[in-house]
Amino acid sequence: MLTYTFENRGEKPYYQYLYECLRHDIEQGELPAGTKLPSKRSFARQLGLSVMTIESAYEQLMVEGYIYAEEKRGYFVSEMLGQMRYPMQQERPLYQMVQDDSRQQWRMDFTSNQVDRERFPMAIWSRLMREVLSSPSKDVLSPSPPQGIWELRCAIAEHLYHFRGMNVSPEQIVIGAGTEYLYHMLIQLLGRDHVYGIENPGYGKLANIYACNNVAYRFVDLDEQGVSIDSLRAKQVDILHTSPSHHFPTGIVMPISRRQKLLAWAAREENRYIIEDDYDCEFRFGGLPIPTLQSIDANDKVIYLNTFSKSLTPSIRISYMVLPLPLMERFRDKLGFYACTVANFEQYTLAAFLAQGYFEKHINRMRNYYKNQKNEVIALLKKSSLWERVSIYEEDAGLHFLLRIRTDKSDRAIKEDLDKCGIHIRSMADYTHGRKKIQEHTFVINYTALDTEALPEVLEEISRNVL
Amino acid sequence: MLTYTFENRGEKPYYQYLYECLRHDIEQGELPAGTKLPSKRSFARQLGLSVMTIESAYEQLMVEGYIYAEEKRGYFVSEMLGQMRYPMQQERPLYQMVQDDSRQQWRMDFTSNQVDRERFPMAIWSRLMREVLSSPSKDVLSPSPPQGIWELRCAIAEHLYHFRGMNVSPEQIVIGAGTEYLYHMLIQLLGRDHVYGIENPGYGKLANIYACNNVAYRFVDLDEQGVSIDSLRAKQVDILHTSPSHHFPTGIVMPISRRQKLLAWAAREENRYIIEDDYDCEFRFGGLPIPTLQSIDANDKVIYLNTFSKSLTPSIRISYMVLPLPLMERFRDKLGFYACTVANFEQYTLAAFLAQGYFEKHINRMRNYYKNQKNEVIALLKKSSLWERVSIYEEDAGLHFLLRIRTDKSDRAIKEDLDKCGIHIRSMADYTHGRKKIQEHTFVINYTALDTEALPEVLEEISRNVL
Repeated sequence: MLTYTFENRGEKPYYQYLYECLRHDIEQGELPAGTKLPSKRSFARQLGLSVMTIESAYEQLMVEGYIYAEEKRGYFVSEMLGQMRYPMQQERPLYQMVQDDSRQQWRMDFTSNQVDRERFPMAIWSRLMREVLSSPSKDVLSPSPPQGIWELRCAIAEHLYHFRGMNVSPEQIVIGAGTEYLYHMLIQLLGRDHVYGIENPGYGKLANIYACNNVAYRFVDLDEQGVSIDSLRAKQVDILHTSPSHHFPTGIVMPISRRQKLLAWAAREENRYIIEDDYDCEFRFGGLPIPTLQSIDANDKVIYLNTFSKSLTPSIRISYMVLPLPLMERFRDKLGFYACTVANFEQYTLAAFLAQGYFEKHINRMRNYYKNQKNEVIALLKKSSLWERVSIYEEDAGLHFLLRIRTDKSDRAIKEDLDKCGIHIRSMADYTHGRKKIQEHTFVINYTALDTEALPEVLEEISRNVL
Repeated sequence: MLTYTFENRGEKPYYQYLYECLRHDIEQGELPAGTKLPSKRSFARQLGLSVMTIESAYEQLMVEGYIYAEEKRGYFVSEMLGQMRYPMQQERPLYQMVQDDSRQQWRMDFTSNQVDRERFPMAIWSRLMREVLSSPSKDVLSPSPPQGIWELRCAIAEHLYHFRGMNVSPEQIVIGAGTEYLYHMLIQLLGRDHVYGIENPGYGKLANIYACNNVAYRFVDLDEQGVSIDSLRAKQVDILHTSPSHHFPTGIVMPISRRQKLLAWAAREENRYIIEDDYDCEFRFGGLPIPTLQSIDANDKVIYLNTFSKSLTPSIRISYMVLPLPLMERFRDKLGFYACTVANFEQYTLAAFLAQGYFEKHINRMRNYYKNQKNEVIALLKKSSLWERVSIYEEDAGLHFLLRIRTDKSDRAIKEDLDKCGIHIRSMADYTHGRKKIQEHTFVINYTALDTEALPEVLEEISRNVL
């Protein structure tokens, strides 16, 4: 006779415990297929429980398919596929909760541009977010339209008009959770049967993204004016990634003549496009901002991309792209079913931040801060014993500069030795793929997050290591 | 002699206006390539400006490549590629700012489960977010680690343990901005050379996603127990999408025997996987939650996915997946370079919301609310004149039920006629692809957002239209 005791029930309801006992016995083959279970009434009497309790347990087993009912005949055990090997998961202890130690701590990291929290206008951001969350007029709980909320797209269009000389409509703007995500959208929009061109040297992640998406990509060589048109033609590229206003890591600003040639190259074939990544345009320290390729493109060939992760804080994942109108139509047709990847209230907060002028103020403040930080880092370099064997290549822009070291030691050996001292640094070779002539001994200095108090000692360490 | 007047300068600095004039004349061919510009000193004297102003304008033109300097000889106009056809964009008026009218307003929408803002615990969410933003101990401004922040992954693991009987480690969890984004990650992780299986009938967007990514997918038929193993074999599927706890739109709960067969199918080949989308598991109204496939998988074959967009609010884009450990390693190797797509402070806020028990309370409250709402909608149906010609198919779960209408009118004609009355509804046929036997006259009722005051009139409208 089927019976159970309830001593180990703990805090579970009776019906749940009974369900678990029966389920266990069915899974372990103790109650083989076809076994008739006691009637609810007799089982209730026998176990000293209510008929309701038995019914709830049987119901659950029925929903999950462990037993079935036959009219007027009662409840029977279903066919199982052999014994189940797993333990009842609830019985297993919860995994060991260990602290995540995946983030490596460097003594000094020349590869990161992470910024102090003090630099971010947290009080304003918090207040705007609070206002957004409590505003009954904003549909902060509705799903965002696929391209992002209208207010943010308007604010971005207005920003681009005043600060980048670009005349675009909010209808051309697509918001996404980070530039990498937008690259995925672009692959889907432009198609996989094209060859994507990546600047060489250049930003390393792009090749990873195209490789992971099984899309053909080729490295396009740069000369001293930026992307070489000859290389572009030789590699038969269809879609080119480029950062003409300030190339990473070389710092090249593409001159107008090369820009014209690039646009002419794109205009020549229907499937050619230029993806203009304007990632750090906000940070030019002297003169006017460099005009975008997008703003001089007369043939709808330039897709403009930018991100707030660099200009605001990397913890905010909001990027956007401006599509030429014909591509925008294709986007709506083909990709309009995708939900926007950025939370609504974050979009509203950023829209307010832009529209109320806080972004402009923030950028001005950061530009000053970065300029001072760069000057301080360079001043410390000049004071260090490293100075006699280095040259600095810096544009009046961007969040990094180049440091050329006169040494006979290989770049790799230098990096490995510095690594052992807790100093993380990358050289031009790390951003260059398979070119014969590599700029040797040229290191990329991301200076914005460097601790200037600890820097003199680190520079002496480097000085000792480059010999 | 080159000269300019400054009457139309407006509020621009002199150097910027002069730069724009020179640039314009170079672009229009008025100053052809090779033209020697006046020396800074003589130009300054002639225009009545400081040498510094001329220098700044020349500097900007040099950076952008419009002119070049030759030592001891002076400044010369660079070679242009013909005249540039574009107007100075700043001169053009800003695009017409029109209000976005893309969101269609329905009188009643049976296809949406959007929830009132009153249902979301906005005050608690706001408070937690405020705490996160002002907490100095949280690195809310650092970039999130690729899988998402550790605290949130711990909170999710704990939640899954207590409420889904799943014993997973935070190390297996990957956070992403929406389930669609995670599907993209899975395509990259599992590979494009596999055949993905989609339940038929089923959730329509999946086919769109695979089509946009040029990945082979096939529709797998369901029988009354869910995914048919025969169909799975016949279609030579490698990776199956399924929602065994509550299938959309049929409402099928997959019985244990079928689950076992499915797991056995997956275990048979190395490249077979099951993607278990547990999208509305929180909303079972009676009995215990249905155990997940993941929890009875002994062979690392199940990838579990869930989202907070359904259970919290669609404006929050946070989803997650639990990868079997071997796949997790592959993820770190192959996709670890991607930045997490969810803002850090949102992740921290959700982590606190989960860890402090608010999520559980919210779900309990929503479960009651939905149950009452469903009962009310069904009660109104019973009172309407539609009732005599319909049957309801409802599981004790989920955010929709099925309404079978006895009529001779085609589903398409019904939908079109209702559309004209501002009533948006979808039938089973909209979720079914190329099967001969389609459940005709079966409509999907997403009931959670229905306005019960307006419903009686709408039901009479439907009643008139189905004849």
